Amino acid sequence: MPQFNKICIVGLGLIGGSVGIAAKERRLAKRVYGLVRRKESIREAKRLGVVDVATMDAEEATSNADLVIIATPLGVMERMAAAIKPYLSPGCIVTDVGSSKQCVVGLMEKLFHPCVHFIGAHPIAGSERSGMRASRANLFEGAPCILTPTRKTNKKSLGKVRRLWRDLGSRVTLMSPGAHDRVVAAISHLPHVLAVTLVNCIAGMPGSTKKVLPFAGTGFKDSTRIAASHPEMWVDICLANRKEILRALESFEKQLRILKKALRSAKPPAVHKHLSRASTTRRRIR
Amino acid sequence: MPQFNKICIVGLGLIGGSVGIAAKERRLAKRVYGLVRRKESIREAKRLGVVDVATMDAEEATSNADLVIIATPLGVMERMAAAIKPYLSPGCIVTDVGSSKQCVVGLMEKLFHPCVHFIGAHPIAGSERSGMRASRANLFEGAPCILTPTRKTNKKSLGKVRRLWRDLGSRVTLMSPGAHDRVVAAISHLPHVLAVTLVNCIAGMPGSTKKVLPFAGTGFKDSTRIAASHPEMWVDICLANRKEILRALESFEKQLRILKKALRSAKPPAVHKHLSRASTTRRRIR
Repeated sequence: MPQFNKICIVGLGLIGGSVGIAAKERRLAKRVYGLVRRKESIREAKRLGVVDVATMDAEEATSNADLVIIATPLGVMERMAAAIKPYLSPGCIVTDVGSSKQCVVGLMEKLFHPCVHFIGAHPIAGSERSGMRASRANLFEGAPCILTPTRKTNKKSLGKVRRLWRDLGSRVTLMSPGAHDRVVAAISHLPHVLAVTLVNCIAGMPGSTKKVLPFAGTGFKDSTRIAASHPEMWVDICLANRKEILRALESFEKQLRILKKALRSAKPPAVHKHLSRASTTRRRIR
Repeated sequence: MPQFNKICIVGLGLIGGSVGIAAKERRLAKRVYGLVRRKESIREAKRLGVVDVATMDAEEATSNADLVIIATPLGVMERMAAAIKPYLSPGCIVTDVGSSKQCVVGLMEKLFHPCVHFIGAHPIAGSERSGMRASRANLFEGAPCILTPTRKTNKKSLGKVRRLWRDLGSRVTLMSPGAHDRVVAAISHLPHVLAVTLVNCIAGMPGSTKKVLPFAGTGFKDSTRIAASHPEMWVDICLANRKEILRALESFEKQLRILKKALRSAKPPAVHKHLSRASTTRRRIR
């Protein structure tokens, strides 16, 4: 017996599409609907089989759904939420997959009627690839997923969303929207803005294309892979979480000053201390 | 007919070991010797078949060699060069694989007799893995290799070393030792120190191990993979090339200030400009 009767996924990009494929494969709902904004996406969704029914009609997609997963970029989330709001049944659970939670959760708790249960969620999965075509059923397997309940959160619905992400293969953790934003600014957004800055720094060197970039080895390639990500999506993330990102950058710059001081001192033990600490920490992460 | 009669590789780590395996496989020399500093390395070299003969005897390893490749960490290069110096025949070519070239080339050109032909070389290959066990014949395939001739360089010997690295699969480029150090500080050493600083920044957060690091996704993992590298090797590199690394860090910090300003402004077009520039640049690199 599937946990849900009708799931609707709003937005079928990498995350939405992967939820669709995985939910179908694991029979988590009787029917999986996808709400999209372009005709092409309907054709693509059919071809790739990411949902049972893909439609541009908000009513068809969401009416009688017991679970709606908003998987659009952060920047259009509010608009899409407002568009589906009239069709949601009482008791319907709405969740999202956004990378920034304070703003999303605040907005959604205000927007929806209290009998619609909103649960903030952020599956930490994905890569520099994006779009429906990159979707895959195992995207969430072993990946962390953070749920961000508040005082207003319905406990039973939280339990159902928790089970959903576990069923999709995620390791689920609960924390407050604020704690989420701090952690994710450090472990995900900071690496992103650093990779972007590194690429721009190299690209800005004289004769970069011919004289510098051809010497990129695996170190540079690995450490800048995420900079190739979809800029529009990341503009939304950077702006939604900019305060925490700026705070994370401050900690980073503090560490950088320590390393620069060690380099300037030219003392091997001072430099060694930083390199070995990082090496030991990094080796622990698989 | 092999290009060389006897090659001696001084130091059988990841790079030295891989040169050995590849040189044997491609029959680039009649005999490949390895000079090591520990008995265990002789046994390991035999077991892995990285050279024809592994020895701790500098005379046995280098006498009558027509090519000596110094593949030790930067910090012991001078000592090893001095140790083999008495046994080198006139006309012998000596080359290295060090990641910093001004200091190495200056030192070696001074150390060796003019009838020994030193050619600075830097194959940009390898990863966070190190040691003989990680050696593989295809390590240099498609990877850049920079040779750094000076006014003192023997042209014929330069040609031979160039052919060697081409035969090992590298894309060979010539540049001055100073140009090399600038380029490599930017494209290789800068990403390294940034990855190290990022890991230390995260590790320094309160409750990091339990509350932050478990949420590391592919973005963080990719961008910090190099931070797991051998600290000792990187202390040598950081110190040998510290001036250029500090200069590269200045350019990086300049770019970071621009991005921070854009984030503080909270203006989407300002943030978008940086993200899209990086994305376009990074997508061009395979």
